[in-house]
Amino acid sequence: MAVYTEVSDDELDEFLDQYDIGKAVSCKGIAEGVENTNYLLQTDRDQFILTLYEKRVRPEDLPFFLGFMEHLAAGGVACPTPIPGRDGKALRTIAGKQAAIVSFLTGVWHRRPTATHCAELGRAMANMHLAGRDFGLTRGNDLSVAGWQALFDECGDGGETVQSGLTAIIADELARLEQDWPTDLPQGVIHADLFPDNVFFLGDKLSGLIDFYFACSDFLVYDVAICLNAWCFEQDGSFNVTKARKMLAAYRSVRPLSEAEINALPILARGAALRFLLTRLYDWLNQIEGAMVKPKNPLEYLARLRFHQSVRQRGDYGLD
Amino acid sequence: MAVYTEVSDDELDEFLDQYDIGKAVSCKGIAEGVENTNYLLQTDRDQFILTLYEKRVRPEDLPFFLGFMEHLAAGGVACPTPIPGRDGKALRTIAGKQAAIVSFLTGVWHRRPTATHCAELGRAMANMHLAGRDFGLTRGNDLSVAGWQALFDECGDGGETVQSGLTAIIADELARLEQDWPTDLPQGVIHADLFPDNVFFLGDKLSGLIDFYFACSDFLVYDVAICLNAWCFEQDGSFNVTKARKMLAAYRSVRPLSEAEINALPILARGAALRFLLTRLYDWLNQIEGAMVKPKNPLEYLARLRFHQSVRQRGDYGLD
Repeated sequence: MAVYTEVSDDELDEFLDQYDIGKAVSCKGIAEGVENTNYLLQTDRDQFILTLYEKRVRPEDLPFFLGFMEHLAAGGVACPTPIPGRDGKALRTIAGKQAAIVSFLTGVWHRRPTATHCAELGRAMANMHLAGRDFGLTRGNDLSVAGWQALFDECGDGGETVQSGLTAIIADELARLEQDWPTDLPQGVIHADLFPDNVFFLGDKLSGLIDFYFACSDFLVYDVAICLNAWCFEQDGSFNVTKARKMLAAYRSVRPLSEAEINALPILARGAALRFLLTRLYDWLNQIEGAMVKPKNPLEYLARLRFHQSVRQRGDYGLD
Repeated sequence: MAVYTEVSDDELDEFLDQYDIGKAVSCKGIAEGVENTNYLLQTDRDQFILTLYEKRVRPEDLPFFLGFMEHLAAGGVACPTPIPGRDGKALRTIAGKQAAIVSFLTGVWHRRPTATHCAELGRAMANMHLAGRDFGLTRGNDLSVAGWQALFDECGDGGETVQSGLTAIIADELARLEQDWPTDLPQGVIHADLFPDNVFFLGDKLSGLIDFYFACSDFLVYDVAICLNAWCFEQDGSFNVTKARKMLAAYRSVRPLSEAEINALPILARGAALRFLLTRLYDWLNQIEGAMVKPKNPLEYLARLRFHQSVRQRGDYGLD
């Protein structure tokens, strides 16, 4: 939620000379994206987003992220399309940072998505999974089960300052997930961070998916499990089975889920809850005093984890 | 440089229903303006800036600021124009904050303005002063000579941590300015913060002035003195007399300066240097650890003050 790198007008003009997209008539830093610096760039021809990649993005991952967006856009998925320079390359350098210009997507994100929005999301996610199938690159998921222990270790006993007993709860769950995590489900590229703020709507119609900087290769249905966590709980922590039913039905109408995928949903949803519990806990314990980004409460994900632990039958997720 | 108040899509839709400017298709928080929350709002008809006024702006001043912008825009000055709702009112409430929508100005600001830009600024500033003459409201300048002692008191001996001896230098200058400050010069509404980041250009042509939230009633030529400080010094601290000459000549070609105004320039320029030295010193001493807004170095304005103290003849500012 900040501009980490300032771009001068001279640097911008020189940068835009490498493209065929017109001259800048406006360029404003936008207060979105915790990871990177984003400018809303307007030229005399069109609007774009200029992203400067900051230290939390590994440079070697950029061809994967940009390539995936390009691949999806070519496959008809509404998402930011990397704009190549005159030499055909989308990944360039400005102000000492790796950077890319992508197309601008209209739409606003819904703070309180409805069941209708969940259905739209399910359909778009399935289309994205299908469109990603023949993408040539792969990238491991650092934030899946194999990475959680290290993240947990970095939190030490810090969880106790948030809620007494939290450390033991996480340790137990982690052991269980490491043991029961599925190994043989359909894989592909997943978005891995498809929260409401990354999904744009015009009215009730989904207009695009953004922020592919956590995209990675994993079980496709793990993306669905993340979205169960991100979209189907109310502000008071209760699970809204109607939203889940709509999201899953819409997803399955585009990409059917196998029996194995459906059976894996509870464990994957528990994993997704633990993943966000751990990263939020880490950010909570490592917050910068006085910083403007307020860390999110990790305990919201403990409540979600508890729900998924209680799931006994597919009907609990609204599945037939 | 932050979004202090989040606006939900529902709040935004409801807010826009009070206007006749179309439906929102995009709304992004922009990382500009330390004082307020600004969104770049795009509707299906046009682009706008939605500003939510945060605690550093006094609510009772808002009619002055918005009225002045409206007045200037009606007088042909390129600046954000407050957009009235269907009831004719521009000042409204959203997310519990006073707020207004203003027109969007294209242009980028120049980090390193040239003498040509300084001339454009001089002309635009003079036009603004003329257009403001028949504006009916007044607002005192809290940050002029009468307010500096209180600001200085709040800094205590903090200046010593920045540079040994700074407290005595400021005390001496303040006493001198309080004694010699002019009392009888043409008055009107000044912008009072016309730094390069508040002046937009398309190429070398000035496209508009923004951020009128320091505007107040004062000597018109004090605005010129502020701009001598804000525009005519190089990064290395040296005074660029060519820039001053161009700025002043362009200003005078639109609004001639009286002998009294010209004679007052050095003392007013010293005052402007002290004003920014003091506010920067205050922000420097009261910075929030870890905050993303890095305070600006107050000593840049000590160097400017030193220059203005050394001015002996009008030619030092490039005046004939």
